[in-house]
Amino acid sequence: MDPTRPESVPNPAVRRLSLYLRQLEAFARKGRRTISSKQLGQSLGLTDAQVRKDLAYFGQFGHPGIGYRVDDLIAQVRRILGTDKIWNVLLVGAGNLGRALMSYKGFDAKGFRLVAVFDSDPSKVGKKQGPFVIESLNDLREVIDRHAIRLAMIAVPADAAQDIADRLVEAGIRGLLNFAPLSLKVPEEVALNAVDLAVQMEQLSFQVNMPLGQTKET
Amino acid sequence: MDPTRPESVPNPAVRRLSLYLRQLEAFARKGRRTISSKQLGQSLGLTDAQVRKDLAYFGQFGHPGIGYRVDDLIAQVRRILGTDKIWNVLLVGAGNLGRALMSYKGFDAKGFRLVAVFDSDPSKVGKKQGPFVIESLNDLREVIDRHAIRLAMIAVPADAAQDIADRLVEAGIRGLLNFAPLSLKVPEEVALNAVDLAVQMEQLSFQVNMPLGQTKET
Repeated sequence: MDPTRPESVPNPAVRRLSLYLRQLEAFARKGRRTISSKQLGQSLGLTDAQVRKDLAYFGQFGHPGIGYRVDDLIAQVRRILGTDKIWNVLLVGAGNLGRALMSYKGFDAKGFRLVAVFDSDPSKVGKKQGPFVIESLNDLREVIDRHAIRLAMIAVPADAAQDIADRLVEAGIRGLLNFAPLSLKVPEEVALNAVDLAVQMEQLSFQVNMPLGQTKET
Repeated sequence: MDPTRPESVPNPAVRRLSLYLRQLEAFARKGRRTISSKQLGQSLGLTDAQVRKDLAYFGQFGHPGIGYRVDDLIAQVRRILGTDKIWNVLLVGAGNLGRALMSYKGFDAKGFRLVAVFDSDPSKVGKKQGPFVIESLNDLREVIDRHAIRLAMIAVPADAAQDIADRLVEAGIRGLLNFAPLSLKVPEEVALNAVDLAVQMEQLSFQVNMPLGQTKET
């Protein structure tokens, strides 16, 4: 068995991998060469046991008496997350949110390159927006094939989102990040992640409602 | 002990409360009056045991032989999440992302009302954007007090975000939703949630990299 392809990994452990990667990159920028599971955990408010358990899903990365080698663990986590290579990404929706995503500074350094932007509004197609020329949805498959795109962001109104998702999956997209405020249905083999801002706000209101110290990260 | 204020609730259980609420609202729109933990779980790909365990942190809501009364459980979950009342929310940052947030349709129905928008750019202050007049950060405390605002969204560039967070906390904000691509530091009594788009994309690339069926929701 390939140790980076374990049978079953809990989603929260995969989310924490992203957080570990952020912290490891920050430690690397400060010149740190090794780190213990305790130090890595402390930087995120987690126990060393949690860190070791999460990483153990994917292999044995620590060295007795040394801990983890920072550069080595960064490379391993990137390989596990699939960001040791560059992913070409497309965006559907050139409205306010779409424009915000086009100018978002956080993607490139993490291995994601926005390469094409689509909109269903004919008056937008062919127009330039920042470095992008807005493309027609009729050219979806051709553009996806040309750039070998597997990941897409959906930033369209809720009533258009399911149709867009269907067309993206049909045209070869295998991972969707949905910003529209509704639950999309996709085939089982397609990965789906949603940024539901109301859910995010509810988590805040829950915590602000509760007295201190009554939630825990697990 | 107030049953909606238990000692310690895992964060993933609180996230699932939001998902249960979405599904319950959808069932209510379809006219459903009762639902079992199995049906609620199936609609989200979760086991009935998971549903019962999550809800049990907050009390006993089911009725033997009936299951849950949909309207009753909706009211209870809203009360637990704190969205049985309206929360006034402010936004800092009137750029592309800020404009997207101003026009976002998903907040109002969930109990969140955007009431004020701030920007540090003097050329924007006093200008109208949609229904909002952009306010000066100098008026932060006054506006927060006037509208009894406790929750804020930060949609400013990364290098400005920590300063904005500090000023918001200082002026009375108790929950922050951060969209800037960096980790903010806030006092322990302040709730912080982050929408880190690169983390979201990493979760997708992990799943697209992995063969089918190798993650599970826990």
